[in-house]
Amino acid sequence: MTQKQFIYPLRVHIEDTDCNGIVYHSNYLNFMERARSEWLLHLKLDKEWQSQHGILFAVHSANIEFIKPARVHDKLEVLTSVKSMRRASMVFDQIIRLASDPDIIFSKAEITIVCVDNNMKVRGIPSDPIFRQICV
Amino acid sequence: MTQKQFIYPLRVHIEDTDCNGIVYHSNYLNFMERARSEWLLHLKLDKEWQSQHGILFAVHSANIEFIKPARVHDKLEVLTSVKSMRRASMVFDQIIRLASDPDIIFSKAEITIVCVDNNMKVRGIPSDPIFRQICV
Amino acid sequence: MTQKQFIYPLRVHIEDTDCNGIVYHSNYLNFMERARSEWLLHLKLDKEWQSQHGILFAVHSANIEFIKPARVHDKLEVLTSVKSMRRASMVFDQIIRLASDPDIIFSKAEITIVCVDNNMKVRGIPSDPIFRQICV
Amino acid sequence: MTQKQFIYPLRVHIEDTDCNGIVYHSNYLNFMERARSEWLLHLKLDKEWQSQHGILFAVHSANIEFIKPARVHDKLEVLTSVKSMRRASMVFDQIIRLASDPDIIFSKAEITIVCVDNNMKVRGIPSDPIFRQICV
Repeated sequence: MTQKQFIYPLRVHIEDTDCNGIVYHSNYLNFMERARSEWLLHLKLDKEWQSQHGILFAVHSANIEFIKPARVHDKLEVLTSVKSMRRASMVFDQIIRLASDPDIIFSKAEITIVCVDNNMKVRGIPSDPIFRQICV
Repeated sequence: MTQKQFIYPLRVHIEDTDCNGIVYHSNYLNFMERARSEWLLHLKLDKEWQSQHGILFAVHSANIEFIKPARVHDKLEVLTSVKSMRRASMVFDQIIRLASDPDIIFSKAEITIVCVDNNMKVRGIPSDPIFRQICV
Repeated sequence: MTQKQFIYPLRVHIEDTDCNGIVYHSNYLNFMERARSEWLLHLKLDKEWQSQHGILFAVHSANIEFIKPARVHDKLEVLTSVKSMRRASMVFDQIIRLASDPDIIFSKAEITIVCVDNNMKVRGIPSDPIFRQICV
Repeated sequence: MTQKQFIYPLRVHIEDTDCNGIVYHSNYLNFMERARSEWLLHLKLDKEWQSQHGILFAVHSANIEFIKPARVHDKLEVLTSVKSMRRASMVFDQIIRLASDPDIIFSKAEITIVCVDNNMKVRGIPSDPIFRQICV
């Protein structure tokens, strides 16, 4: 059931665009975060799992390219995979592309997530067999 | 020092606009909330005061008109006054206008705020002499 | 195929919440706008139809109640119907409720939309047989 | 009057935070864009200047670190400088820090901006003596 790759579809809405007629750049990071959250929910690594372990995942850094502007009402999909995993952090590769034509790529990013406790101190990621299934 | 009216200046930024070239409608509610927060901070009714009393102010309802569209980089100001105050709620009158010409009005709203405890149950507003000074 | 009522499902994401742990109030207006847009897209009254007629729909006013706070990862649905239609405006009734329990209502609003030309001047809504089908 | 460095002050508002009680990560990119816009406005390289030359500045890529979480009502400042400038692009170094203590750094980024025409094709940045003054 779990895979090495997760596809999350979404529609661009008016709120996502700006006065240049295109998606405002930082919203691609929002789209990517929605995709990671949906994947974690799908894997049952959700808020309950996180609070049982007393941890949460915080975004540590992002390296993002804005390749082509998406426009209002475009149907996009976010492709997410785990590039690498360490004791307390994970690196995700994420691509936002047109749902109807995967060759049209709007944005690409490498997002590093760090596991922290409720005081925002770095903590090891709780072990769970699911991680073996999603990592390449 | 305190007044019956509070003026909060702000600039429209690209993030506030949409693909119609104007401020996205719900952002006027954000501008109004920033103005109410700055007023509460100015009056020392801030987060510390609220958590000392175990309460927070939640938006209960809004009646808002979008009169004229503001555009990117416009300098606006939000005019805020207390229309009425009851045991557990306050009604604010708020107007968003052009900073350089107060006759150009972009939005008007009546915003009702309710005092709630940490479980989101309605609670009486803690008494404080400051409220006499800001209410008409 | 068309109905008097349109249901739009959505998930609350982290970006929609605030430091009080609940959905930030103005985002309910965003959710409602997404629902109206999806309905218009479904009815083929989309951006192309609008620009063929040289018009667009702007939000004129909103009367919104925030009844109960939704939280991160909640699955919601927006129920939309046309309350009334006039020459240049439409009033929508919109309700946001829990997808799994329609009795749990988070927000209710009456949203008035006005038809404007590209200079933001009021214009009659172009006639189209579809409007007869969606109005009560 | 112009400098190699521009400081833009801002307040964190409720809308900027999320249910983890901290500023939502992508909003740091918004804060940085506000700072770049205010600098361009200050230098008269504003929308009018851009449209006279038939160009606009688009964000090409961002390399951003989220170092420490800012919280509601914090007073921040964004420090902006030009790291390098090429024919059609500029790289900005931006730091977000606590206004009252510049050693407390929330986020750092390198943001690459590209000059494009109205069809989003890359164009040389129009020459203007001001650029000599802001580049190191």
